[in-house]
Amino acid sequence: MPYEHIATELSDGILTITLDRPEQLNAFTATMQRELIAAFDEADADDAVRVIVVTGRGRAFCAGADLSAGPSTFDAGARGRPTDIREYRDGGGMVTLRIFELKKPIIAAINGPAVGVGVTMTLAMDVRLASENARFGFVFARRGIVPEAASSWFLPRAVGIQQAMEWVATGRVFDAQEALRGRLVRSVHPPEELLPAAYALAREIADNTSAVSVALSRQLMWRGLVADHPMKAHMADSRGILIMGASPDVKEGVAAFLEKRRPNFTMSVSKDLPDLFPFYKTPEFE
Amino acid sequence: MPYEHIATELSDGILTITLDRPEQLNAFTATMQRELIAAFDEADADDAVRVIVVTGRGRAFCAGADLSAGPSTFDAGARGRPTDIREYRDGGGMVTLRIFELKKPIIAAINGPAVGVGVTMTLAMDVRLASENARFGFVFARRGIVPEAASSWFLPRAVGIQQAMEWVATGRVFDAQEALRGRLVRSVHPPEELLPAAYALAREIADNTSAVSVALSRQLMWRGLVADHPMKAHMADSRGILIMGASPDVKEGVAAFLEKRRPNFTMSVSKDLPDLFPFYKTPEFE
Amino acid sequence: MPYEHIATELSDGILTITLDRPEQLNAFTATMQRELIAAFDEADADDAVRVIVVTGRGRAFCAGADLSAGPSTFDAGARGRPTDIREYRDGGGMVTLRIFELKKPIIAAINGPAVGVGVTMTLAMDVRLASENARFGFVFARRGIVPEAASSWFLPRAVGIQQAMEWVATGRVFDAQEALRGRLVRSVHPPEELLPAAYALAREIADNTSAVSVALSRQLMWRGLVADHPMKAHMADSRGILIMGASPDVKEGVAAFLEKRRPNFTMSVSKDLPDLFPFYKTPEFE
Repeated sequence: MPYEHIATELSDGILTITLDRPEQLNAFTATMQRELIAAFDEADADDAVRVIVVTGRGRAFCAGADLSAGPSTFDAGARGRPTDIREYRDGGGMVTLRIFELKKPIIAAINGPAVGVGVTMTLAMDVRLASENARFGFVFARRGIVPEAASSWFLPRAVGIQQAMEWVATGRVFDAQEALRGRLVRSVHPPEELLPAAYALAREIADNTSAVSVALSRQLMWRGLVADHPMKAHMADSRGILIMGASPDVKEGVAAFLEKRRPNFTMSVSKDLPDLFPFYKTPEFE
Repeated sequence: MPYEHIATELSDGILTITLDRPEQLNAFTATMQRELIAAFDEADADDAVRVIVVTGRGRAFCAGADLSAGPSTFDAGARGRPTDIREYRDGGGMVTLRIFELKKPIIAAINGPAVGVGVTMTLAMDVRLASENARFGFVFARRGIVPEAASSWFLPRAVGIQQAMEWVATGRVFDAQEALRGRLVRSVHPPEELLPAAYALAREIADNTSAVSVALSRQLMWRGLVADHPMKAHMADSRGILIMGASPDVKEGVAAFLEKRRPNFTMSVSKDLPDLFPFYKTPEFE
Repeated sequence: MPYEHIATELSDGILTITLDRPEQLNAFTATMQRELIAAFDEADADDAVRVIVVTGRGRAFCAGADLSAGPSTFDAGARGRPTDIREYRDGGGMVTLRIFELKKPIIAAINGPAVGVGVTMTLAMDVRLASENARFGFVFARRGIVPEAASSWFLPRAVGIQQAMEWVATGRVFDAQEALRGRLVRSVHPPEELLPAAYALAREIADNTSAVSVALSRQLMWRGLVADHPMKAHMADSRGILIMGASPDVKEGVAAFLEKRRPNFTMSVSKDLPDLFPFYKTPEFE
């Protein structure tokens, strides 16, 4: 695959996406943004991809926005980009909103510094594992900019508003243990054990579950966090029980359970995914 | 009370609801669903019920949906049930939505395996205590079905989206300590100490508080989690302060506090509960 | 400043607001409510105020509503106050809603008992530190009244609905360690180290960040918790990146970072704060 700033590798159901600018500590670029979105589109369309693992090449996960343009880095006008306030869209947010709609579970394996968009891009991922070498920083206020990538929606829901405010108001860079205590990451690992732990979790998903059930579960949970009332969840999951309840996968899943054997699910995310959310629409950007 | 799949017992203000199919590990049935809702209706109407404790008979809490119909368990059409997608409603969700509107505080005493609807039914309960023997599993993706009982609304709010996604995407069965670390349960107890701990918490509520204040507090907190802005909470609690502020219970409560004695509250949930939420409506199922 | 029930002191960018009725354990009054709101208005208008620290004089933080009027304390009619149910507003909620819109980060240094409105008023503050001597109680149900100060919106989001329900349904008074385990406070300190810890955190903010970035970050995070979809966060932060990206503060922030020196931000919250939320309105009270 012709990617420049990321690399992808598919192996036995697990797609690894590697942020791949190691000399620049995998600093985020417009190219990386487009490539990540393209890779997610490919992953959703490819039934061979059951789980996605995102990590960084070299010693960093992602050091944040590429600052090689210096103080005018964020100045859209100076850089010849559109500046109409009703059209300008933050690149990090385009990535996290795409992840929000992803059909495959996605695990961040944070191998080193994850700063600025390097950490906010992970907030829409399902599970975050960190190396003992990881460092985190919502450093925006130290640079005179603002938290982005829709992190103001994701972060207070992920770690609570108290912890979110401490991290964004100080702009502090903090270590993996502070991230663990604050529930930003679910576990911390010696560096050489990080990817094995991420792959073990990915395998636990890929080896035991219906791909369609997992895709629907992911939609249910993330859209459930959007839902304004549990009735909306009830409307969606009632459809899920009705439709999947008559499906080949549930018949195989229940039969395998009763026969105490591993199930062999056959339904396809790309072809068989039912719509449980006729009432759900992504709001327009305006 | 003429229940088949549950048993109820009222003692000194505490209603114990026992899931009561021990030979089937208290597997969930349509009968159990209707009986739970009927028991909640009764509890709300009976001022003698101050607190509800839900537990399971025998070694399980609830092993999930009764799979005795085999692979067609969830196939509404095959089982002669309505299959109109705009009318079909998941039974677990009818239970949790009923609990959501309950006027009495409700404590889950999870004495053994709580799997599938066995755990999702507890997500609308206020507090979950677990025995060291408890086991949990959001196993839906391993069966080819989806998380139900409106758990996609309740679960990410209860434990955070990261923990929710790990549990629903893997479908893993996990023990009480993992449930505690993940904040699914508030405490873990040796088996013989589980019910005493649940009753001690129930007594702490029943012995010290105004039943009307507790009912309003429950409505406030759960509907506060639905509210789209703190102003809505302010609108509801302003009504609460105005109405309860002139009530017999507040006069007794403040007098008892100033006189350093236990209060003797007299207001009735069935007769005296004010409406603090003229603007709140349960959305229609559609 | 001519305050009666609070005291304020500004020193090197940090405004300390002290609840100042030590003989009455800083019990909350209508005067204290008006003065807190006035102090917040002043703080927002004064660029010399970077961070606010709220604490209590003497051995208490705030013992709750002043009960010196006895059992009729909360009886608006008996006390000659307006009783129209569409106009009556809870005083605690007026304070927390004001804090919700505050432009300066605000830290609660809870030095002793914080009960009733004494604790609910802190729920809209960003970070809560507690002394080992602190005590907490959502005691409303023990007094025959209801949780107020919009706490039904703030509390379940701050600590989870399970912990919130346990505290409001029991009305229990609990110590600093229980508050820490329940994530109500972020840290517990020996009494003499409480204010130094609060000031150290305040300094970390004041010494390293752009005041405008911090004000926008605070709006983003709290309004992000209100937002019904991450797209709303993306709409707001895209504006933030566009506008701040061309600002003097980002140029200084990036330059200082690249030059490895401390930044010298010059933008003013009172004059230069952009509106990132053309779509956000505080709902009307009704």
